Amino acid sequence: MSYFADIEPIKFEGLDSSNQLAFRYYDKDRMVMGKRMEDHLRMAVCYWHSFCWDGFDVFGGGTFNRPWHGGPIDQARADHKLDEAFEFFTRLGLPYFCFHDVDVMAHAETIDEHVRNFANIVDKIQEKMDATGIKLLWGTANMFSHPRYMGGASTNPDPDVFRFAATQVRHCIEATHRLGGENYVLWGGREGYDCLLNTDLKQEKAQLGRFLQMVVEHKHKIGFKGDILIEPKPHEPTKHQYDFDVETIYGFLLANGLEKEVKMNIEANHATLSGHSFEHEVASAINLGIFGSIDMNRGDPQNGWDTDQFPNDIREITTGLYYILKNGGFVNGGNNFDAKVRRQSIDPADLFHGHIGGIDILARSLLNAAAMIEGGELDAVLQDRYADWHSDKGQALLSKDNGLEAISDAALAEGISPQPKSGRQEYVENIISRYI
Amino acid sequence: MSYFADIEPIKFEGLDSSNQLAFRYYDKDRMVMGKRMEDHLRMAVCYWHSFCWDGFDVFGGGTFNRPWHGGPIDQARADHKLDEAFEFFTRLGLPYFCFHDVDVMAHAETIDEHVRNFANIVDKIQEKMDATGIKLLWGTANMFSHPRYMGGASTNPDPDVFRFAATQVRHCIEATHRLGGENYVLWGGREGYDCLLNTDLKQEKAQLGRFLQMVVEHKHKIGFKGDILIEPKPHEPTKHQYDFDVETIYGFLLANGLEKEVKMNIEANHATLSGHSFEHEVASAINLGIFGSIDMNRGDPQNGWDTDQFPNDIREITTGLYYILKNGGFVNGGNNFDAKVRRQSIDPADLFHGHIGGIDILARSLLNAAAMIEGGELDAVLQDRYADWHSDKGQALLSKDNGLEAISDAALAEGISPQPKSGRQEYVENIISRYI
Amino acid sequence: MSYFADIEPIKFEGLDSSNQLAFRYYDKDRMVMGKRMEDHLRMAVCYWHSFCWDGFDVFGGGTFNRPWHGGPIDQARADHKLDEAFEFFTRLGLPYFCFHDVDVMAHAETIDEHVRNFANIVDKIQEKMDATGIKLLWGTANMFSHPRYMGGASTNPDPDVFRFAATQVRHCIEATHRLGGENYVLWGGREGYDCLLNTDLKQEKAQLGRFLQMVVEHKHKIGFKGDILIEPKPHEPTKHQYDFDVETIYGFLLANGLEKEVKMNIEANHATLSGHSFEHEVASAINLGIFGSIDMNRGDPQNGWDTDQFPNDIREITTGLYYILKNGGFVNGGNNFDAKVRRQSIDPADLFHGHIGGIDILARSLLNAAAMIEGGELDAVLQDRYADWHSDKGQALLSKDNGLEAISDAALAEGISPQPKSGRQEYVENIISRYI
Amino acid sequence: MSYFADIEPIKFEGLDSSNQLAFRYYDKDRMVMGKRMEDHLRMAVCYWHSFCWDGFDVFGGGTFNRPWHGGPIDQARADHKLDEAFEFFTRLGLPYFCFHDVDVMAHAETIDEHVRNFANIVDKIQEKMDATGIKLLWGTANMFSHPRYMGGASTNPDPDVFRFAATQVRHCIEATHRLGGENYVLWGGREGYDCLLNTDLKQEKAQLGRFLQMVVEHKHKIGFKGDILIEPKPHEPTKHQYDFDVETIYGFLLANGLEKEVKMNIEANHATLSGHSFEHEVASAINLGIFGSIDMNRGDPQNGWDTDQFPNDIREITTGLYYILKNGGFVNGGNNFDAKVRRQSIDPADLFHGHIGGIDILARSLLNAAAMIEGGELDAVLQDRYADWHSDKGQALLSKDNGLEAISDAALAEGISPQPKSGRQEYVENIISRYI
Repeated sequence: MSYFADIEPIKFEGLDSSNQLAFRYYDKDRMVMGKRMEDHLRMAVCYWHSFCWDGFDVFGGGTFNRPWHGGPIDQARADHKLDEAFEFFTRLGLPYFCFHDVDVMAHAETIDEHVRNFANIVDKIQEKMDATGIKLLWGTANMFSHPRYMGGASTNPDPDVFRFAATQVRHCIEATHRLGGENYVLWGGREGYDCLLNTDLKQEKAQLGRFLQMVVEHKHKIGFKGDILIEPKPHEPTKHQYDFDVETIYGFLLANGLEKEVKMNIEANHATLSGHSFEHEVASAINLGIFGSIDMNRGDPQNGWDTDQFPNDIREITTGLYYILKNGGFVNGGNNFDAKVRRQSIDPADLFHGHIGGIDILARSLLNAAAMIEGGELDAVLQDRYADWHSDKGQALLSKDNGLEAISDAALAEGISPQPKSGRQEYVENIISRYI
Repeated sequence: MSYFADIEPIKFEGLDSSNQLAFRYYDKDRMVMGKRMEDHLRMAVCYWHSFCWDGFDVFGGGTFNRPWHGGPIDQARADHKLDEAFEFFTRLGLPYFCFHDVDVMAHAETIDEHVRNFANIVDKIQEKMDATGIKLLWGTANMFSHPRYMGGASTNPDPDVFRFAATQVRHCIEATHRLGGENYVLWGGREGYDCLLNTDLKQEKAQLGRFLQMVVEHKHKIGFKGDILIEPKPHEPTKHQYDFDVETIYGFLLANGLEKEVKMNIEANHATLSGHSFEHEVASAINLGIFGSIDMNRGDPQNGWDTDQFPNDIREITTGLYYILKNGGFVNGGNNFDAKVRRQSIDPADLFHGHIGGIDILARSLLNAAAMIEGGELDAVLQDRYADWHSDKGQALLSKDNGLEAISDAALAEGISPQPKSGRQEYVENIISRYI
Repeated sequence: MSYFADIEPIKFEGLDSSNQLAFRYYDKDRMVMGKRMEDHLRMAVCYWHSFCWDGFDVFGGGTFNRPWHGGPIDQARADHKLDEAFEFFTRLGLPYFCFHDVDVMAHAETIDEHVRNFANIVDKIQEKMDATGIKLLWGTANMFSHPRYMGGASTNPDPDVFRFAATQVRHCIEATHRLGGENYVLWGGREGYDCLLNTDLKQEKAQLGRFLQMVVEHKHKIGFKGDILIEPKPHEPTKHQYDFDVETIYGFLLANGLEKEVKMNIEANHATLSGHSFEHEVASAINLGIFGSIDMNRGDPQNGWDTDQFPNDIREITTGLYYILKNGGFVNGGNNFDAKVRRQSIDPADLFHGHIGGIDILARSLLNAAAMIEGGELDAVLQDRYADWHSDKGQALLSKDNGLEAISDAALAEGISPQPKSGRQEYVENIISRYI
Repeated sequence: MSYFADIEPIKFEGLDSSNQLAFRYYDKDRMVMGKRMEDHLRMAVCYWHSFCWDGFDVFGGGTFNRPWHGGPIDQARADHKLDEAFEFFTRLGLPYFCFHDVDVMAHAETIDEHVRNFANIVDKIQEKMDATGIKLLWGTANMFSHPRYMGGASTNPDPDVFRFAATQVRHCIEATHRLGGENYVLWGGREGYDCLLNTDLKQEKAQLGRFLQMVVEHKHKIGFKGDILIEPKPHEPTKHQYDFDVETIYGFLLANGLEKEVKMNIEANHATLSGHSFEHEVASAINLGIFGSIDMNRGDPQNGWDTDQFPNDIREITTGLYYILKNGGFVNGGNNFDAKVRRQSIDPADLFHGHIGGIDILARSLLNAAAMIEGGELDAVLQDRYADWHSDKGQALLSKDNGLEAISDAALAEGISPQPKSGRQEYVENIISRYI
């Protein structure tokens, strides 16, 4: 009998329901701006936090004690975990899931085992997907947990580690392609440094750049049509990670000729760890033309590490989704819940409560964001504020024919005396408050 | 009589001196690695903190009550301030100073006044420089203090503000050129946003990019040979500043075709506000080929704003200078003390104590860094750690001819099993400890 | 004609209103849990941010240019400011205001002037209050802005500064009493240190403790029935402020025998600067029996200084009010908007938008919190979770008669093996989400 | 053969030595202010980081692969670990070590096993101590790693967990006493909350207070003469830990009548996580009369979690030791290296490098601090700055007979006009620079 046998499939019951194991906002077939909620939000469950992590932290051991926990993940345990994962996916009712190679497979030590064990489980995943209709939002290779990666994967001082990483990625992107995955993600957990003094920055970034180019080349070679996504994070586990934030990666992509090939998978908690708001990272990626997908979660504003909690800030999510919707919505990307229940939340039901809370916040935020677009007040503010730049005179100012000398001579001759105009920040913030 | 009349010119007296108004390490003619200390460190006094700021903060008024404080800066006060600034420079004995246009000139309201008052004081600065031999490390235009700039300078929603800014910069860069300034700096204090919702990111960054291109074009037009420098800062006064950190600016330069034209002026306190160590920002800029100059100071690790204190961390400065020396040392750049005495340090002597402390830390750090280079232990660690990448096999791995498929097939065939090697972080950190 | 003449008095118009200069939630006479909304929330406008501050920051001058700005505050300007402040209070429609002595009075240099100018304006304030029905939530003395206080007020190394501070407080608490103020607040902006090395911690805290005792003694002497409140803040302007957070102050009160005499005025932004959530500080003060009042605002989670923005986080305010309501609600305290419009919000209307946004968030949060109390789910969770401690066996365990030896002997004999129970954090967090 | 067989016992070789496996400053018999360096610094190795931790972190598995790692710690492994720990202690040459009960013992599941396995290893520890002369600085019970403690130990909602914790502490304090330990430490790693909403603050703190009283009662009962120490930490693993910082604990001790019974074990990294400098926490504890011991390490100023790195900041350690020396030095406490080598530092030699670096920084800092005391400049600054408070007039001001009315009347009559005096912060900071 399933570990989740006590939990009935989660249904939409609306705002009047007092059932905490039901959706109050997420009505997947409800049409919003001409599209189904499910198709807008493209939500996914992640494999690692909910099925691999046993509740350990740096100060203590596992607490969850799920039936497949408690020993090395051999094939039987990997299969058991897969069964239960799809039980959960099915009962929860989201269309997608995401995984790292090592999340799903039996533990491997050698490179040969890695390739074999992974191939083995991919077949079984395919069967589960066929049987349930659950789809793969993205796959990724875990190149940070095994001790071989302690000094980085593609940025390791040892070229053989680079080769091992290349092997993992090649097989993982091919599996992702085969399973119909819609994106392939790279998170460089140890692609950075713990100590600048023992690190050759230039060498390591050259390795990272070439590695990324090869991933893109391979994607085209195998005909994978999904997006290649990089997930920014400033640090943790390393002291400093190269993919610090959206803008840092953008510079790196430009330097490696990849700015048209690679997009961003933005995690809310990583955004705040890097000193940015979630909205900032989303808006920056959109502005730079590299927005891809979201790892949806939240951090703790008073704690300085990646807490990966389920999101619950209606204002933050509404604003983020507003930018995404204004940009046309998700294409290949979606909202992956890269979130975990707290270590004390040890019951099967807790896994549902975590996800349900996150799903309903997203659904509610979608409704808010759509209403904001329809309301149009924010657009009007921007239209009005920058109107002078959209005039012929404003545009001429930025023309390549113009220069400091001409502009300053004219300004002086004209005796310009620009008058401050209100930025109306509180007015604008109140607009958001009206919609949430 | 000078405000600083009680302070004798500061001299090098060596380690045995108990005179707190003397240098213990800074012996400007001492040769280090074949160059005079003064020529290595190229230190500068900044005009703003020491001569313009009156000790006010957000919670209280000015405390310094220097003779030229206490009212609007008319021409007489500006002249008085200039006299005393050069009195200070002379007594302190550093070769350089730095200024913003509005620091030195009589206060102006109109654009016409601005140009006139600035031109007026530039003549007098020239005389002072000729008379004293003090040189200009860099000039810059203050485009953040006047209310017209409350919404940004080049990124303002009002094109006339862009024009005013262009006028300031044009005249300031020309004055810098005329005064023999060795660099021209831009710090975009309000080039960012307070509120993302009322901001058109794409439009503002287009303005910023074109503005910067025009500065570079004008530099070439007038034959200025110094460097154009941007100073990164993540936020404050704005919630988010576009020139967040070195890597962000690098992406921006690439996107605007300016990566060969513009370099970085790295401030220690701005580095830490952006979530990086000072060494990180220095090493990153060097690695990207855009290192220019230093705004030397320190922040408070427990406070979250720009405290601009005089530097005193021997380890941090030694490490930063080590990277700079390894890269060949400063070219046009130098160490500008962008530091201010605390609001309670109201005596003329305090201005000297602040600078002397910073100067001696730099001099001592220079000696340390030179010894580290000579010692060679750090180089040896890096050489050893990345040796495999410098082999033919390592380099082939990064060749464009290689790809994921070939690499992974070979790795699998070979059955590679990379073994972790110690990163020796503590060993490396102890090396630094030996030299400080 | 009033500076605010264009703004009609703000009215409640309900959720359907699209008028941004109206309340959507704040319906002051609406009954909530048997009390009028106005009486629950006891909201106040603060004098300083809205009428004294001219929009300056550390990087630039004033932007607001209100009619009474632009020069020293002589009596005429102080009177003008007072008129306009009450115009604003009246149009906004909150029952209370708060002030510092120096906010309201004509600028004074000597101690004699201070006492006279303050007495003068207090008479006029009384008239305004009588005429409008606006009440005083609390008064306070500003002992941080004048240069004499640069090294602290009661903690100053100069006893004469302590005496000046005593003089200000004596007159301010008496004025507060006379004006019917309901509390008297102390915020020790410079009661701390910038540099530990030049500070005698023990001496300064002895001064601070005795000063506070005298304030309490004087309160009783004059028959003031309101609460004496301390406002915690960890730092800024000082590097470290002695009233760091609620728990620190609690220890200080205990050490000075004042724990029954002094309560907390908790500011949301100060809470987060000290590394705590706002809810934490509220709940801690309630738990320690020293909760008094709220300075309502919000900080910027990515910036490390006191931004004093108007609150807009519905989850945070709902949770804070929930704890306060559970504790019986405000007694003498209330919600003072210690918040300021942004420096770019220069129009008279912006002052209203800021306050309206904050007021409506509080009103909505009050409704949420009341519903949460009525719903009772959170109570049930706590009841259940700690049930074993409320049993006789649980209580016996904490009895003074028990000891480590007896407890451990019994535990061993019994062979206890406690089993983890879910903390249900996500379930509990979803409850909040349902109510907001 | 020992795991550490390749490393010769570490010797003092002085500044000229280039041997990185030697001390350059730590000359244990060198007399400093009339006492041996060893007796001043009282340094200890901690068991957990160096012998229990296998190099795992939240993102990856163990990397150290020491001979006793790799499986459950049964008696044989516990014995093996003990042998190697004393090998290390002996070769390193510090006089002390510290441990948690579970660090040293064979893993236990039941309460009975716990008591037995612990008793078993204590006998063996005694033998090792007798054989080597290594002494125990302090013992402590680990009440945070086992899943039973996921919701706290003494603050757990389940009284049986409180009982289990009482059992562990009783046996651990008795063992510490028997082994001649000089202190007993409590660190409440999970004594706090992850979620305020499901937490009864008042109940949990009552449990914590009573527990601490029982520990003190038991100490006296068994005749243990060492200090009971609490180690502050603000958070991690919990969102909020009750023993937040020194001042918070001081209030808690006062509230529980324990301020004469319990002292502080201050960890440098915990200090900075709580928003304080290390010096601040040391000086605060001294000022409050509750200074006990130091957990010596450092955090990463850019990372927001407990990195527990070996200390290397000469300025910070010098200043901390200066305060301690001024206070008479350590009594029962000492410097425990609560520090771990980085996860990539996998060689046996790395463990020595880490400790040697820390030991030499402490030794050098001790010399600096002693010289500072002898120099007396800092004392002179304080003497001068507070002189007026030490006068009769100053002291009278703080007398209980005085009050606001009398003081303000006199101040007004006198027309006092206090004049700011320089705080001389840069002068004072330069004094430190001279000594480091």
